[in-house]
Amino acid sequence: MDYVYGPGRNHLFVPGPVNIPDQVIRAMNRNNEDYRSPAVPALTKILLEDVKKIFKTTSGTPFLIPTTGTGAWESALTNTLSPGDRIVSFLIGQFSLLWIDQQQRLNFKVDVVESEWGQGANLDVLASKIAEDKAHTIKAICIVHNETATGVTNDLAAVRKILDHYQHPALFLVDGVSSICALDFRMDEWGIDVALTGSQKALSLPTGMGIVCASHKALEATKTAKSVRVFFDWNDYLKFYKLGTYWPYTPSIQLLYGLRAALDLIFEEGLDNVIARHGRLAKATRLAVEAWGLKNCTQKEEWFSDTVTAVVVPPYIDSSEIVRRAWKRYNLSLGLGLNKVAGKVFRIGHLGNLNELQLMGCLAGVEMVLKDVGYPVKLGSGVAAASAYLQNTIPLIPSRI
Amino acid sequence: MDYVYGPGRNHLFVPGPVNIPDQVIRAMNRNNEDYRSPAVPALTKILLEDVKKIFKTTSGTPFLIPTTGTGAWESALTNTLSPGDRIVSFLIGQFSLLWIDQQQRLNFKVDVVESEWGQGANLDVLASKIAEDKAHTIKAICIVHNETATGVTNDLAAVRKILDHYQHPALFLVDGVSSICALDFRMDEWGIDVALTGSQKALSLPTGMGIVCASHKALEATKTAKSVRVFFDWNDYLKFYKLGTYWPYTPSIQLLYGLRAALDLIFEEGLDNVIARHGRLAKATRLAVEAWGLKNCTQKEEWFSDTVTAVVVPPYIDSSEIVRRAWKRYNLSLGLGLNKVAGKVFRIGHLGNLNELQLMGCLAGVEMVLKDVGYPVKLGSGVAAASAYLQNTIPLIPSRI
Amino acid sequence: MDYVYGPGRNHLFVPGPVNIPDQVIRAMNRNNEDYRSPAVPALTKILLEDVKKIFKTTSGTPFLIPTTGTGAWESALTNTLSPGDRIVSFLIGQFSLLWIDQQQRLNFKVDVVESEWGQGANLDVLASKIAEDKAHTIKAICIVHNETATGVTNDLAAVRKILDHYQHPALFLVDGVSSICALDFRMDEWGIDVALTGSQKALSLPTGMGIVCASHKALEATKTAKSVRVFFDWNDYLKFYKLGTYWPYTPSIQLLYGLRAALDLIFEEGLDNVIARHGRLAKATRLAVEAWGLKNCTQKEEWFSDTVTAVVVPPYIDSSEIVRRAWKRYNLSLGLGLNKVAGKVFRIGHLGNLNELQLMGCLAGVEMVLKDVGYPVKLGSGVAAASAYLQNTIPLIPSRI
Amino acid sequence: MDYVYGPGRNHLFVPGPVNIPDQVIRAMNRNNEDYRSPAVPALTKILLEDVKKIFKTTSGTPFLIPTTGTGAWESALTNTLSPGDRIVSFLIGQFSLLWIDQQQRLNFKVDVVESEWGQGANLDVLASKIAEDKAHTIKAICIVHNETATGVTNDLAAVRKILDHYQHPALFLVDGVSSICALDFRMDEWGIDVALTGSQKALSLPTGMGIVCASHKALEATKTAKSVRVFFDWNDYLKFYKLGTYWPYTPSIQLLYGLRAALDLIFEEGLDNVIARHGRLAKATRLAVEAWGLKNCTQKEEWFSDTVTAVVVPPYIDSSEIVRRAWKRYNLSLGLGLNKVAGKVFRIGHLGNLNELQLMGCLAGVEMVLKDVGYPVKLGSGVAAASAYLQNTIPLIPSRI
Repeated sequence: MDYVYGPGRNHLFVPGPVNIPDQVIRAMNRNNEDYRSPAVPALTKILLEDVKKIFKTTSGTPFLIPTTGTGAWESALTNTLSPGDRIVSFLIGQFSLLWIDQQQRLNFKVDVVESEWGQGANLDVLASKIAEDKAHTIKAICIVHNETATGVTNDLAAVRKILDHYQHPALFLVDGVSSICALDFRMDEWGIDVALTGSQKALSLPTGMGIVCASHKALEATKTAKSVRVFFDWNDYLKFYKLGTYWPYTPSIQLLYGLRAALDLIFEEGLDNVIARHGRLAKATRLAVEAWGLKNCTQKEEWFSDTVTAVVVPPYIDSSEIVRRAWKRYNLSLGLGLNKVAGKVFRIGHLGNLNELQLMGCLAGVEMVLKDVGYPVKLGSGVAAASAYLQNTIPLIPSRI
Repeated sequence: MDYVYGPGRNHLFVPGPVNIPDQVIRAMNRNNEDYRSPAVPALTKILLEDVKKIFKTTSGTPFLIPTTGTGAWESALTNTLSPGDRIVSFLIGQFSLLWIDQQQRLNFKVDVVESEWGQGANLDVLASKIAEDKAHTIKAICIVHNETATGVTNDLAAVRKILDHYQHPALFLVDGVSSICALDFRMDEWGIDVALTGSQKALSLPTGMGIVCASHKALEATKTAKSVRVFFDWNDYLKFYKLGTYWPYTPSIQLLYGLRAALDLIFEEGLDNVIARHGRLAKATRLAVEAWGLKNCTQKEEWFSDTVTAVVVPPYIDSSEIVRRAWKRYNLSLGLGLNKVAGKVFRIGHLGNLNELQLMGCLAGVEMVLKDVGYPVKLGSGVAAASAYLQNTIPLIPSRI
Repeated sequence: MDYVYGPGRNHLFVPGPVNIPDQVIRAMNRNNEDYRSPAVPALTKILLEDVKKIFKTTSGTPFLIPTTGTGAWESALTNTLSPGDRIVSFLIGQFSLLWIDQQQRLNFKVDVVESEWGQGANLDVLASKIAEDKAHTIKAICIVHNETATGVTNDLAAVRKILDHYQHPALFLVDGVSSICALDFRMDEWGIDVALTGSQKALSLPTGMGIVCASHKALEATKTAKSVRVFFDWNDYLKFYKLGTYWPYTPSIQLLYGLRAALDLIFEEGLDNVIARHGRLAKATRLAVEAWGLKNCTQKEEWFSDTVTAVVVPPYIDSSEIVRRAWKRYNLSLGLGLNKVAGKVFRIGHLGNLNELQLMGCLAGVEMVLKDVGYPVKLGSGVAAASAYLQNTIPLIPSRI
Repeated sequence: MDYVYGPGRNHLFVPGPVNIPDQVIRAMNRNNEDYRSPAVPALTKILLEDVKKIFKTTSGTPFLIPTTGTGAWESALTNTLSPGDRIVSFLIGQFSLLWIDQQQRLNFKVDVVESEWGQGANLDVLASKIAEDKAHTIKAICIVHNETATGVTNDLAAVRKILDHYQHPALFLVDGVSSICALDFRMDEWGIDVALTGSQKALSLPTGMGIVCASHKALEATKTAKSVRVFFDWNDYLKFYKLGTYWPYTPSIQLLYGLRAALDLIFEEGLDNVIARHGRLAKATRLAVEAWGLKNCTQKEEWFSDTVTAVVVPPYIDSSEIVRRAWKRYNLSLGLGLNKVAGKVFRIGHLGNLNELQLMGCLAGVEMVLKDVGYPVKLGSGVAAASAYLQNTIPLIPSRI
């Protein structure tokens, strides 16, 4: 029944779903409860307040939707826009591609701004589109903060700067699926109108909760947005928020208690410490890749992602074989190259509740797999580079000093 | 943090979410896994095959959607119908009302056939509508098998008989949320085109999985259905079924293993034994209600539900107070009266992985609460009536003989 | 693999091991930890302080020994006494018999004071023995606070009164296995020298921790006690207490965290409320037994146990058949009659983390079983009697008011 | 409450208690059960049969005692020997020292054969003692198979050879605490009379079960053995084995189901594969130690332990500081140097349900800690040496091929 069995633990380094901390697994280890009893609304109320902190917003309105990131996308779009609305969207990898596909199937008019995979969003094109759009026909800018397929992080502050510069009223919709809780993310400061993530990413929960946060402006937009929506309609939530019962339909009791535990862990470590930790692990990973003589799929340092690193393999190697073999021989789960970069890159996810030695295990595993598939890596070289950096930078565990 | 604390266990008798068996809680007590590794597709493949058994279908195509019943409804409608399509829908309680509301918001033209709450769907009206509809303008019949608000079970075989009698091609869409895995349900035999349920009902899992099963005819209908859909689009699933990777987006690993364990328990007991057990517990509950001198909200025996009993209280009692007090004093969770029957009925959910003595605890609790709120119940009377029936009918536990 | 499977939950009403609260199961759901890291001693230190509260002692020294009640007995005896020492011990049922057997095998000279099973310890005999023992040849009084086989609770305060009256220095050793945390127990006030219980009883944990508490006088006695002991030697613990590392050998990490959670629940409810709850459930049980027309094995009210009720069946019924059938047909676990009362009594354990409706389920089950085996019980009669009492006495759940 | 918190998982590399596989944690995540119901004896019966396989015995009689290794020692000695009996025992490290201390406190006459710590048992001395002992005054040979303090494995086959050579009837009592289920161990072939281990070692369970296996000859010896014993008396078990109820006192239900799951994992991997895996991980560890330029505490290759490696640090470093810092900064748990080697060695436990990349994480951590405390290690050097060996030797995970 447990197909995945091998001695010891699985080393989970895909960029989602990520490792769930034991404290969260424990918190979720429970029976169902009546979600109409006073207990669940009381829990929900606090969660809605606390979850805003991971978006760095005080004025946003959060929604905890029983869905995945794909559903969270759909809720962001259909609640704020009408069919035919013009939006600008950036195609830089598989996940931005899928979001654009969704936007088109939902009948928006999408200006697709494409970049080479491995590059960030082309904000120059955005600037000129915005500059030209005196009539404000552009209703929304849709951008993936961190493209999980290529390990590229976009500059959200720069997007806001462009919109502000031209005093353009377009909504600013952000996929923060592989960034929120792991990368620097400031909903209020950057004037983001809808931000969203999924429970199974940096929050380190099981899949099943789309966490969406809407600005005042986004909530205003719902009044005129004509996209058809029922399951994803924020107004159904808002109606129940007012009643104090919170849920238009049944939530997962387990995910609510899990979210409580996950937030507790993040707040205990400190959100900024969590983000700094992601920075350290990512930097260590990139130093290992460099030591192996391999290339980062991300073309410039300004776009380096601190949650996922896509590693380019030499043309004579099939990166899928690396992923297969890592799983079969070392119980190591790596991310496949997707679509345009299939066979060309493999991905190391370093997000969520992880520490340095877990990463070292992964890097040592990647080295052995690389050798297995015929790449002349020097065993230990990546670990050496990564640990030289980490040994100088990681702090003591605060609760243990 | 655990607001619900009281000594001992909570007695969960709402009609969903229901009690999760310990075996299922154990199976879900686990870390995330890479859903793109070979293990998760292998598990999924078997689950898709096995889940058909609870629908009693061999030809249907199942979808395990990360959503709730409300989302499952939306998937049934948008995949098979186009805006403006005429459908016949039965309003007999809160859940059929909510589904009709969704149907209208999704821009279908709904012929609402209303019955008094406590009665079943008016199939005479259906018959005449079908008889008159020579042009086949009616595209679908939407019916809730078991209306959870009033404890009314509709006769699905009769619906099929009407359609067959007039050789009417309308799709037959069934909400089996509080019926499938608990009541007699025969997708193939009754010619149901889309049947759906939610994981937190008779399957006895946490909330978060909408389980939808589509007939060949329903799948054909997707080709012409113009309703906008992305997250709920079955074709995205079918594409990945063909690839053998099964998932267009990330599933909940925990729910997959939980479903495996839940199905194992059902098959071990035997689906028909499960259904018979629901029949016994329901009958026992109705006998208790009778012994208390109270009325079943369901007006005729033919509509009695074997998964939920809505009990009418005398006018001088507020049924909400019964529910509140049951929770506050006895750690007993009962269902509120909803909408039209708010304050007038309380509901006992007796579905899912339950046994006789659990029900006895509930009935004893209801008796004490009734007395607490001033109803002159004879303590022990309901338990006596229920156990007199059960003592003559329940079998030995097969694995223990 | 799960032989015990039946639909729904097992109704566990043996007098140990008892139901573990979900909060405790969650707390124990964890990996091992290095017990020599600073974390485990820090946890242990607080536990040792907190566990004294359940003994109502401030001056006692507790030991958390990886063993069962039988081992806890052995530790009480061997640490304080020497072979050949004279002790007075009361034989009133199976567990006092087993302890006496141990005392004899450990080579003590035991004055066995026997009572009929169903009666309490004969304290008149004790008084005369003490009165006569001017030379203080009696080194210890050994008494089982609550005899689990017959549901008899002895009067510990009266024992102390006798010793005090004659200013007799005998050690006062008490088996509190089925009493501590459930019955009124006052180590300091009653001058108890060694008190002990097991984790699987009223503390509602898994089996595996013998919890022993020693007075100053008992610790002094270790200095002259010549009984051979190594594993059970308190001095090995005391040595590690001084070092601040606490453990002479490896403890169960899971039981330590479980004990933390169990104590948290008890303190949250309030130890005296816990004891009062046991009183209520026991009284309700006895009222049910009376309503069934059956006899309590305990012969006088002054000995009624609030943790277990032994029910005498008519001579034409084999009580073992009741226990077997309860398990086979109703998933109800009752206690067998043991030794002298085998076949004559069955036992209802009502100790640990239980509530009223759980007990009602049990009572309803017992009624059905009684009828199954041919006893002319009036179904519902016991539940009626019990709930009439409870409905007037149980408080609201404090955290829910 | 969770003092041990740090981001990510704890890396547990003490030589016990060791990591518990998720499958086992899941199996133990359960409520108590009545151990007198038919289910628990049925489970026990199979466990007693299966547990013999890890001892490689068909004729031995196993006991699952609710205790630790220390208690298992006591049961081995007191069931087979009488006070004053002469035994030969080998002092080669802290755990053999503790056992000898127990032997002396239990009043046996112990010929202590001491070796330098880091060396194995001096079998030449044994041979001459046996040769001289024509009168068979030596009643037992007590030997620790694997001394956990120094990482020394003794040659049990050689002990048997000596006894056989002189046809000496002494009992052969073996502490297999850190060897059984991890090292080559052959109870029947090597004529071992009592072998024992603890659940928290290579079986990868929580602490709390002492697993002892006795030969026919050992069982015969119980008839004349005069050591006082009650809790540890095998005859109490044998009495209940005959009755088919198996337990003289309450077992831990959770540990029984845990043992079931643990054995299932071991048999699925194959016991000999498990042992081979321990060999690989140990060899990799030793290669890393060598690459760091550090010395193994074990003085000769013939004694190298495949379950624990004790690493000698240079005199200017306090090995305790390494252990402290590993825990504080890297969430890595290493073993302290004990007694004579305190401050001089730290220990890497590599036993139980572990895999290669987990070990790599540990080795990378040790390297960083070594640098932290001022040892001029080349970062990555140990990982390189270990992975060069592993990359050539580890098999594919069988279930994934």
